[in-house]
Amino acid sequence: MITLNDTHQADLTSWVDSANVTGNGFPIQNLPFASFRRRGSGEAFRPGVGIGNQIVDLSRLYDLNLFTDKAQQALEACQGIQLNGLMALGQPYWSALRLALSQALRVGSAHEEAIRPLLVAQDEAEFITPSRIGDYTDFYISVHHATAVGKQFRPDNPLLPNYKWVPIGYHGRASSIAVSGQAFPRPVGQTKPKNEGDAPDFGPCKRLDYELELGIFVGEGNEQGQRIEIEQADKHIFGFCILNDWSARDLQAWEYVPLGPFLAKNFASTISPWIVTQEALEPFRCAFAHPADDPQPLPYLSSQANAEGGAYDIQLQVQLTTQQSRDSGQPAFTLADSNFKEAYWTAAQLITHHTVNGCNLQPGDLLGSGTLSGPDAAQAGSLLELTDAGKKPITLPWGESRSFLEDGDEIIMKAVCKKEGYPDISFGSVSGSVLKANFKTA
Amino acid sequence: MITLNDTHQADLTSWVDSANVTGNGFPIQNLPFASFRRRGSGEAFRPGVGIGNQIVDLSRLYDLNLFTDKAQQALEACQGIQLNGLMALGQPYWSALRLALSQALRVGSAHEEAIRPLLVAQDEAEFITPSRIGDYTDFYISVHHATAVGKQFRPDNPLLPNYKWVPIGYHGRASSIAVSGQAFPRPVGQTKPKNEGDAPDFGPCKRLDYELELGIFVGEGNEQGQRIEIEQADKHIFGFCILNDWSARDLQAWEYVPLGPFLAKNFASTISPWIVTQEALEPFRCAFAHPADDPQPLPYLSSQANAEGGAYDIQLQVQLTTQQSRDSGQPAFTLADSNFKEAYWTAAQLITHHTVNGCNLQPGDLLGSGTLSGPDAAQAGSLLELTDAGKKPITLPWGESRSFLEDGDEIIMKAVCKKEGYPDISFGSVSGSVLKANFKTA
Repeated sequence: MITLNDTHQADLTSWVDSANVTGNGFPIQNLPFASFRRRGSGEAFRPGVGIGNQIVDLSRLYDLNLFTDKAQQALEACQGIQLNGLMALGQPYWSALRLALSQALRVGSAHEEAIRPLLVAQDEAEFITPSRIGDYTDFYISVHHATAVGKQFRPDNPLLPNYKWVPIGYHGRASSIAVSGQAFPRPVGQTKPKNEGDAPDFGPCKRLDYELELGIFVGEGNEQGQRIEIEQADKHIFGFCILNDWSARDLQAWEYVPLGPFLAKNFASTISPWIVTQEALEPFRCAFAHPADDPQPLPYLSSQANAEGGAYDIQLQVQLTTQQSRDSGQPAFTLADSNFKEAYWTAAQLITHHTVNGCNLQPGDLLGSGTLSGPDAAQAGSLLELTDAGKKPITLPWGESRSFLEDGDEIIMKAVCKKEGYPDISFGSVSGSVLKANFKTA
Repeated sequence: MITLNDTHQADLTSWVDSANVTGNGFPIQNLPFASFRRRGSGEAFRPGVGIGNQIVDLSRLYDLNLFTDKAQQALEACQGIQLNGLMALGQPYWSALRLALSQALRVGSAHEEAIRPLLVAQDEAEFITPSRIGDYTDFYISVHHATAVGKQFRPDNPLLPNYKWVPIGYHGRASSIAVSGQAFPRPVGQTKPKNEGDAPDFGPCKRLDYELELGIFVGEGNEQGQRIEIEQADKHIFGFCILNDWSARDLQAWEYVPLGPFLAKNFASTISPWIVTQEALEPFRCAFAHPADDPQPLPYLSSQANAEGGAYDIQLQVQLTTQQSRDSGQPAFTLADSNFKEAYWTAAQLITHHTVNGCNLQPGDLLGSGTLSGPDAAQAGSLLELTDAGKKPITLPWGESRSFLEDGDEIIMKAVCKKEGYPDISFGSVSGSVLKANFKTA
């Protein structure tokens, strides 16, 4: 855990005016990271930091030599395409860079004239994944999601016996992760035959879904064979993004025994371009409230700091637009609101559990939270839950209805931290779209 | 499928004398790839090709400018640390390089004097993984393994209904894959409580196992959203290695529902340093013999070429040494022999299935076959099968016995292709060792 410091003062303002607009989400207290370039420019992608509606080009900032010591060394590590180098340096460097950026971007900074020419408007930029993601692991940390999905298979016994002991996770596909704007053809595959013993059906997925998740970017890694203790886990977390873990429910139902989801998940995953750092989220920590009648985590997953502040109050939202809604100028329809603080396991527990067997994490690796459904049925993070596995379609204000996603549908996810007397800290948003399947019928 | 060509002539011999020794395994008909440097030299790792007991340094070979056109362009792509660049070029470049190397290394080659100084003795070299592995996928293609393991859970109904339709696979961990010589501490983790409802046990794995597999290296990849048809799949396969997919059975039994194996597998995986190319294996293709009473694969997994020659006759072996056996100078004990041709699915089918939903494969990705058990119980590729889940320990010739692996145990796997009138094509071997757990008892 990082002590609240000079960069967290609620009344700091920036000479980048747009950062000071109430509710803009990228105030000087945020300073999220991305990899960007001017759209269509053919320039190299490079690390940048968001402030208001602008991006500070960290590659050019390094050349100015305004910063010193760890902050300048952190900028030196930003000379590549993505943020893996900075992530590998560790917390003291991330904090030094954050402090130097906060000071340089404040009203009254002596560096305003030097830095102003380095700003690129966010709406003129395009993005790639902020790190080169070596391995992607997806967890399952919402007990509300696990219970709701479990009920569809086992109404009387929805939660499996390991759930409240093991932060359940599995490995996902890194190659198919892209940033907001990803559009992908509806996946094709085998689905369960109607009659046992028949040949399976084969064709475009009929039950395509989204999953509302947060992603956790690993900073400093660990050596193979060496675990990360729960007290040290926070030091290995660089920051968080929004993650849409698209899921083909009918493919999944047929393929997933006995080794888990595969083609049902690996065709696409979409993340927000921005990583909000753990340090920016410090003011939004909250207690990790294990219900009193639930077992306490095993000692390797327990610490006082984790119990008192291991969770984060991050508000989440999923919205839908369709071809028809966009053609008729309708606003996006909000499918659900949820909150990261409702999760059963904390980010620190995921890091510790992932490494307890000696598995090595590397800078830039991505951990997904799993679908972040809240306790209320309306707070569900997937259509599987909201429509009760397709049995209760949702009626949309413009007259269409949805059980699962149709071609042309766009899912938009947002995340923001809000607190009385403190500027909003936004993750931006992530959108992704479903295209027609590449499939010729016979 | 590649037509047998000049490089496959059985009577070719090399001016590297050790390549001509009967049964040496690295004759001029093999020419496997690796990434190597002189042991302890601090040199950069770089691609090389094995011939006899030597390695041809491809980085230096490029500088000599002996080759032309595609063969020289292929060498140019070998200027990095690993083989991803060469893999990305595609089959015509791999074939051109193979032909040029075969001609240059033959008895009577005009290039003997130029190339001889580029040779490095294999026993003076050290290796890293031959590619930078972006994603690692593990399959489950031995019906004999799936049946044997299934019987332990469901004696009357061992095979799940999807097995004979779906090439079952799941994503594994890329970061913890290393080459032969890997030694890792026994993994620690949660295991199922003896009495339901109790807290799980926590400590070093008690049921540590190996899995005898082959690895398939992806060459040219595919664009996200574009599948690889079965007729094209071979063109995307660069070659094969040996793979030991270490498994913690007790961790797996507790964690694997509902999302599959995670900490039970991701602590370590060991591969042979050598990739035997698909082209070198052409003489060992054999029919993909689906039993007549089994369903035929769905059309997207079917082709005449795959049916007639999609499988490979590759002989496999697993051996064990222990601290005691090494101390007393005993030879390694052979636990089992098996063969890749017994698999239920072919490498081409794995490539096609993996991409049917639009998932993008990338050059250097690794696909594991899954445990390659043969039809006979003695041909099992894991201790789980050989000891009937630990119930029938194996007695070793030097007096010890094993249900699962003990600290200090070393597993050695070998693979070789043998055929009357043709030199042996060896994969070399892969060894890995179990160290004591990093675990302090309370």
